[in-house]
Amino acid sequence: MAMRASVHRFTMRDPADVSQLALAIERGQVNPAHIVAFIGKTEGNGLVNDYTRGYLVLSLKLLLAAQLGKTQEEITRSVIFVFSGGTEGVLTPHYTVFCVDRQAPAATAVPAPAPGTKRLAIGRAFTPVPEPQEIGTRAQVNMVADAVHRAMAEAAITDPADVHFVQVKGGCVTSDVAQAALARGAKLASSDPNKSMAFTRVAGAFGVMQGLGEIAPEAVDEASFFTRPEIWSARASISSGIEVGENEVVVFGNAAGWTSDFVIAHHTMEDALDINGIYACLDDLGIAARGDNRATGIERIVCALVKCEPDARGQVRGQRHTMWQDGDINAQRHIRGAVGGLVAGVLGDTRIFVSGGAEHQGPPGGGLLALIARAA
Amino acid sequence: MAMRASVHRFTMRDPADVSQLALAIERGQVNPAHIVAFIGKTEGNGLVNDYTRGYLVLSLKLLLAAQLGKTQEEITRSVIFVFSGGTEGVLTPHYTVFCVDRQAPAATAVPAPAPGTKRLAIGRAFTPVPEPQEIGTRAQVNMVADAVHRAMAEAAITDPADVHFVQVKGGCVTSDVAQAALARGAKLASSDPNKSMAFTRVAGAFGVMQGLGEIAPEAVDEASFFTRPEIWSARASISSGIEVGENEVVVFGNAAGWTSDFVIAHHTMEDALDINGIYACLDDLGIAARGDNRATGIERIVCALVKCEPDARGQVRGQRHTMWQDGDINAQRHIRGAVGGLVAGVLGDTRIFVSGGAEHQGPPGGGLLALIARAA
Amino acid sequence: MAMRASVHRFTMRDPADVSQLALAIERGQVNPAHIVAFIGKTEGNGLVNDYTRGYLVLSLKLLLAAQLGKTQEEITRSVIFVFSGGTEGVLTPHYTVFCVDRQAPAATAVPAPAPGTKRLAIGRAFTPVPEPQEIGTRAQVNMVADAVHRAMAEAAITDPADVHFVQVKGGCVTSDVAQAALARGAKLASSDPNKSMAFTRVAGAFGVMQGLGEIAPEAVDEASFFTRPEIWSARASISSGIEVGENEVVVFGNAAGWTSDFVIAHHTMEDALDINGIYACLDDLGIAARGDNRATGIERIVCALVKCEPDARGQVRGQRHTMWQDGDINAQRHIRGAVGGLVAGVLGDTRIFVSGGAEHQGPPGGGLLALIARAA
Amino acid sequence: MAMRASVHRFTMRDPADVSQLALAIERGQVNPAHIVAFIGKTEGNGLVNDYTRGYLVLSLKLLLAAQLGKTQEEITRSVIFVFSGGTEGVLTPHYTVFCVDRQAPAATAVPAPAPGTKRLAIGRAFTPVPEPQEIGTRAQVNMVADAVHRAMAEAAITDPADVHFVQVKGGCVTSDVAQAALARGAKLASSDPNKSMAFTRVAGAFGVMQGLGEIAPEAVDEASFFTRPEIWSARASISSGIEVGENEVVVFGNAAGWTSDFVIAHHTMEDALDINGIYACLDDLGIAARGDNRATGIERIVCALVKCEPDARGQVRGQRHTMWQDGDINAQRHIRGAVGGLVAGVLGDTRIFVSGGAEHQGPPGGGLLALIARAA
Repeated sequence: MAMRASVHRFTMRDPADVSQLALAIERGQVNPAHIVAFIGKTEGNGLVNDYTRGYLVLSLKLLLAAQLGKTQEEITRSVIFVFSGGTEGVLTPHYTVFCVDRQAPAATAVPAPAPGTKRLAIGRAFTPVPEPQEIGTRAQVNMVADAVHRAMAEAAITDPADVHFVQVKGGCVTSDVAQAALARGAKLASSDPNKSMAFTRVAGAFGVMQGLGEIAPEAVDEASFFTRPEIWSARASISSGIEVGENEVVVFGNAAGWTSDFVIAHHTMEDALDINGIYACLDDLGIAARGDNRATGIERIVCALVKCEPDARGQVRGQRHTMWQDGDINAQRHIRGAVGGLVAGVLGDTRIFVSGGAEHQGPPGGGLLALIARAA
Repeated sequence: MAMRASVHRFTMRDPADVSQLALAIERGQVNPAHIVAFIGKTEGNGLVNDYTRGYLVLSLKLLLAAQLGKTQEEITRSVIFVFSGGTEGVLTPHYTVFCVDRQAPAATAVPAPAPGTKRLAIGRAFTPVPEPQEIGTRAQVNMVADAVHRAMAEAAITDPADVHFVQVKGGCVTSDVAQAALARGAKLASSDPNKSMAFTRVAGAFGVMQGLGEIAPEAVDEASFFTRPEIWSARASISSGIEVGENEVVVFGNAAGWTSDFVIAHHTMEDALDINGIYACLDDLGIAARGDNRATGIERIVCALVKCEPDARGQVRGQRHTMWQDGDINAQRHIRGAVGGLVAGVLGDTRIFVSGGAEHQGPPGGGLLALIARAA
Repeated sequence: MAMRASVHRFTMRDPADVSQLALAIERGQVNPAHIVAFIGKTEGNGLVNDYTRGYLVLSLKLLLAAQLGKTQEEITRSVIFVFSGGTEGVLTPHYTVFCVDRQAPAATAVPAPAPGTKRLAIGRAFTPVPEPQEIGTRAQVNMVADAVHRAMAEAAITDPADVHFVQVKGGCVTSDVAQAALARGAKLASSDPNKSMAFTRVAGAFGVMQGLGEIAPEAVDEASFFTRPEIWSARASISSGIEVGENEVVVFGNAAGWTSDFVIAHHTMEDALDINGIYACLDDLGIAARGDNRATGIERIVCALVKCEPDARGQVRGQRHTMWQDGDINAQRHIRGAVGGLVAGVLGDTRIFVSGGAEHQGPPGGGLLALIARAA
Repeated sequence: MAMRASVHRFTMRDPADVSQLALAIERGQVNPAHIVAFIGKTEGNGLVNDYTRGYLVLSLKLLLAAQLGKTQEEITRSVIFVFSGGTEGVLTPHYTVFCVDRQAPAATAVPAPAPGTKRLAIGRAFTPVPEPQEIGTRAQVNMVADAVHRAMAEAAITDPADVHFVQVKGGCVTSDVAQAALARGAKLASSDPNKSMAFTRVAGAFGVMQGLGEIAPEAVDEASFFTRPEIWSARASISSGIEVGENEVVVFGNAAGWTSDFVIAHHTMEDALDINGIYACLDDLGIAARGDNRATGIERIVCALVKCEPDARGQVRGQRHTMWQDGDINAQRHIRGAVGGLVAGVLGDTRIFVSGGAEHQGPPGGGLLALIARAA
């Protein structure tokens, strides 16, 4: 018996369309009892008033509840839903389903991994629901760090270096929650919903850094939040939205003891133009596709996860950008469209998870990339 | 004595900032009397109500009028201004100044081109102001085709194969002009300003095709406009906006008889992900930079001109995109951000002219790219 | 025994929040078995990619299915959901629940209507799902007209003059449906989703006119669609969206034989500034509140239903407006915000149903208003 | 000899269209030497990247410079340009020209004001250009207060109660100015351009309050900025934008010693629905038009100036609004459209100056209104 993770990517016609997953379940390609997490892009604006995320979550929960004979609440407690809104530019609304079979027959993997070979490993954990006043604070950092530890344990990953990507989804305050909290005397990191989303992302990033040992707990300082962008994780990806309360953590790595058909790699993007970083990540997977998105091997990629950020200094490689000054299109929508276009062009595929709001997730103005591929 | 074209790229703080050009003139780097055309990106929305284009044109005209002791009207008659709004994503507001010295000393080019070597050649021409009812019709096609011929003649290009890029800027009807025209019984291709802009682009594209001999005049059929996307030019780039009346045409090619320090190449983009096409264009210029935007040689690029288009079929490489269904961000803004991000990533530079609305300019869902580089 | 209609208005925190209705059901204030229709505003953009409508519909169906022990499909077949997206400006996301008790004790109305008094009457009907090629055509007109007749019959309204408001909700083609239809050779009124929504609204408006006898069936001509704005209904309100297939029709009037506590009135708005028309509608209800939205009597209003339209001629009372030329905000969003602000200001309440896209629904550039009030 | 103020309202086709003023000058209806200020609405987004304001200012300066034989710089020093971007909903791009003839023949006013009658009086003043670090601070407050005093003196208004409207236009930091200031160690109220615009508005409002004696200088506390909305002026209207550096102040009142044909009144709007406040302002001018925007007398109105604000508490009269949570349309655009629609509906005219960002300018969630009318 062995653990075995699998990865299934589906697209949808609209945020309520879960028909591709339903069909895969019907055909036996996906065992709904094995699903541990979803990561995907929906076609809203990716900002506070983006309800496409919640709409898809509800639709998926209804499907799983029906398939598994469970209540929506039971699904909520056992599966992690991480959706980022905004399919700017060429991006395709899609979601990737991550399954874990903890009792897979050892012989199923094809090709069978050689002894000692590390293959895709997945673990997840939940935090309690933070109080409004805990959002964006040390308390949230600790919650997330603890959840990272628990998720690594579930994935049987002992060396943090084997972790290649940590996805966190956390909540934020809405206008009315903020008003209520302020009315009862609570002190909020921010009462502005968009800013509150950013605080959750920052606390989540520090939580991942602490959880992976990239930063010592005593070095975490709320005063660094937003102000010291040189402190960053190369493996943290944090999304935020009103549709969740608690923080949800999924750890992805390569580990022995797993017989998955997949491997994962990650690389830093130094800035929004860092095509070299994308190719370096392909290199790590043994895929030679420089300047050729139709090259053999590139079809092994089954999932691309990207975090990026409009450079806060207003420049990319010394030239001004206008993302922060645009009153018509939010800066996160701008950068998702641009970096999404770049990664999609390199890979020749538009089903890319690109999430903005990369504060402390990758270098300032840059971000990070993780690619999951079929094992060669 | 020889003809000599030069290329100068400047950025600006805002659409009225022409200080970099003013400084270059002051320092003798640009001779204002040699300026024949501007092509650039301003930071508006690139749609009908984008006044950043007109604001920059006015600012540049005031500068040139003062420098040359001419009136604004004289500048308007002798210089072509082609500005496309929309610096989505990483794009930088900038403009490229094209100069032609028709009486340059033969010896100035460094390195001196070998006999028979073709170097950057530029010619331009204006059409009359089309009547509202001529916009988007055969009449506008003929106007543009004729202007292409005159511009080629000015550039001393005899073989249409030596033309690598033709930029056209044309007007459109505004709501009030359309109302007035309809009131007097005129039949308009469209009374919707955004649609009218599209008609000008289509007529311009057919005009370039006819002018370059890519299509026979008798094969031009208004019924093909918009409906037969398989008819396209690989070298036509048409912009449209309310700030001009007439069609303005600039032809770029490589030609003997010019001692310019620059050369131009172009390539088709098959779709919005066609990174291979971008690298092929670099190949034509002898720049080897596959997967490496910091490679030696890439700094030779001084101007990148791109046309692109959201795929009308709603898909990119078989996957759905959401550009046409987004009520918040115009489809042209989406595609400029994505393709701009891709080209900027390949070149390592955000000063890219990316113009949407590529109907009949490049393959459907794709577009075209021209790069100007210092001669090797 | 008598028929009795009731009206309940609820607000929500987000498009999935149906807690106020759930509470009203729990408290016995609303009998879920009596619900015949919902009309409301959700906080999306009101355009093609507005999924807040579908999200609320799903949430309400789940509630009613659970309360009534029915399937979602059974709810879909028995209840009409009409949601318009877009709460621009001061507008509040809300929905009004319309109930009909067809076997109410005669004595319940307070005050009991005098014999012969007409009170609020409601009837509804569904059409088949139109084929993509039927959308925006005579076929859809006939479908809707027939449904109006059936809905009037259900409401026991015999005199069309007693009908004060007819709400229709119909579908549209999405990009992929359009592509599929075109691929199989279908001829569509439009393959553009936004335009398709407009075609459904126009066909619906002519359907209501035909159903109410405002236009003779033989006078309905597809060539009039969009082109003859002087043909309009003062009582038709049509919404469109991707979340429904069939056309759903609800007729509101005052009729004898009903013991409802409510009455309805309607009035034309000549243009977007027609405050006189709003006050005239209040006059019809016996509410004197000119220039005073805190006047006694105004609290009797329980539901305000408005259709409006950006003037296609680009002017309001001789002055230019910019709604049609704005590339950043859709014209329908502009007009909903403006007319919503006006009606809300007159009534002193932001829970106004304001729906754009009033082609042939009210005078060109104007629209119509219906108010439901408690009986005096 | 007497002072005499006059008011001329013009519309434009686009932000560069100053033809109506040019014509009025040509016809002798406006003496360009008498122009002291412009207040108007342009059709941009009204946010940081709205260049329509600067484009119109440049166009007007070119006109006046040509007409008066002055340089642009001389015009800048002698005339105040206050443009607010954003003609949401029904609003019409327009500008009002305010002229002062300080040596008018006493007999020109028709009807001649009775002795002791107060008529429209206008004065203006400029502050120095604040340093980036002064924006949004006590220093800016003092600058503005001092300018209010000087402007009142110029208007010969001695009793602050005779002041009915004070318009201030001030600058803000852009991204690059902010970066430069931070780089040299300056401490900024905010480095975010949109937030910086808000700080200028707040400092301006306190400056007007101090200047009019509504607040004692020692009671002005930076800690109150944004946090104590109950401190507000009923007569301050502050706009901000990147196109000016200094603060520009125009004071409007009624004063003896002026023979103008016009009078001014103002009134508070308690919230965004306060139609009663608008009618109260009409009452003050002797115009009876309750519920009737075609009433006799309403045509006397020649200028309407409005400040408004999305309620920070997220509610209007107890009902939720969505303005602050909308990631697609800025909250200020929402509120301008709604309040503009209301005021336009009351007055029957879309040429309304509606400016958002009313922090400390009118009650929280409300705003203020000033109307200028021909003397009865």
